Amino acid sequence: MKILLIGATGTIGQLIDKELSKDDDKQIIRVGNKDGDYQVDSTSEDSVRALFEKVGKVDAIISAAGSYHFGPLDELDKAKFTVSTDNFLAQASLVYIGKDYLNANGSITLTSGILSDDPIVFGSSASAMCAAVNAFVKAAAIELENGIRVNAVSPTALVESWDKFGPFFSGFEPVSGQRVALAYRKSVDGKQTGQEYRVW
Amino acid sequence: MKILLIGATGTIGQLIDKELSKDDDKQIIRVGNKDGDYQVDSTSEDSVRALFEKVGKVDAIISAAGSYHFGPLDELDKAKFTVSTDNFLAQASLVYIGKDYLNANGSITLTSGILSDDPIVFGSSASAMCAAVNAFVKAAAIELENGIRVNAVSPTALVESWDKFGPFFSGFEPVSGQRVALAYRKSVDGKQTGQEYRVW
Repeated sequence: MKILLIGATGTIGQLIDKELSKDDDKQIIRVGNKDGDYQVDSTSEDSVRALFEKVGKVDAIISAAGSYHFGPLDELDKAKFTVSTDNFLAQASLVYIGKDYLNANGSITLTSGILSDDPIVFGSSASAMCAAVNAFVKAAAIELENGIRVNAVSPTALVESWDKFGPFFSGFEPVSGQRVALAYRKSVDGKQTGQEYRVW
Repeated sequence: MKILLIGATGTIGQLIDKELSKDDDKQIIRVGNKDGDYQVDSTSEDSVRALFEKVGKVDAIISAAGSYHFGPLDELDKAKFTVSTDNFLAQASLVYIGKDYLNANGSITLTSGILSDDPIVFGSSASAMCAAVNAFVKAAAIELENGIRVNAVSPTALVESWDKFGPFFSGFEPVSGQRVALAYRKSVDGKQTGQEYRVW
């Protein structure tokens, strides 16, 4: 099984890589912005299409890339918001472009996050775009053909990045990256579609 | 109570106008793209800011404007998606810009829709952005000050537009516009914040 892992060098990407690499039948193709086997600027449809043309058909696409704007509502503007909408649009493009490069019964797994439902101060644009990922997945699932599936993994804050993000998530219970990685495995190995796998 | 009603000439806008105009203590300021007391291009932050500068302080802002892209997932691209993200960003700007033009304890009411949770074929970008509105409202609510509130009304298909949209919403139960208008009244007259008022 060929798995295209976008954002392979990030915190979550590395955890997914470690989890899925346990299986001998899985070949991980690592994609980063600058590192990895291939590079992509996932905010560019041309770059995404070029990546798929280079890699050829795969059995699973996983997006663990992207970041959101964090800052006070009071200082929000369209330019700042675009950091978050671009992340969403990049992930959406992996569905509407990526589906054409998947073998039958392949899967696409995107990443959202707990902020869709449990907001924090400074996170309003992230909350909006995490929710957008979940709803897009649910909607796109009913239009995909050839057994192609799409799901989202929605992690809370990770133990592995608690030193950095803990102060913003006061009172949240961090989860181990290994638990988060399992949710991606569920999406890849399972048969469900249109799901939001919460790891909270 | 001064109420700025953006999208006043649309189907839902007219229904809100009719409902809130029953009250003698409410003054409706009607805003449209081309019609109404004032005009705005709500996709432009400058136009939104200019509108508020002209109108001055109000007690409530209601957004019943905006439309989404509808079309097959197979034909989706960033340009088409932008129709939907622009609608979301326009509504978000009414929060982060509009809050500065609200009197204390004022309210902002945005519009989402049932597709956030109950998708239809051709509606994937609309689903995503309806969910974004709901989540943004929930998150922005915790950062607003001076008693300013923000809610979303999430209508299903309306009886009043069933002739046009019914075929796309087969099996959905349309609701009367009057019921939808009541939800906007609840947001304006009530004290809740961060809510998604579903009219399904």
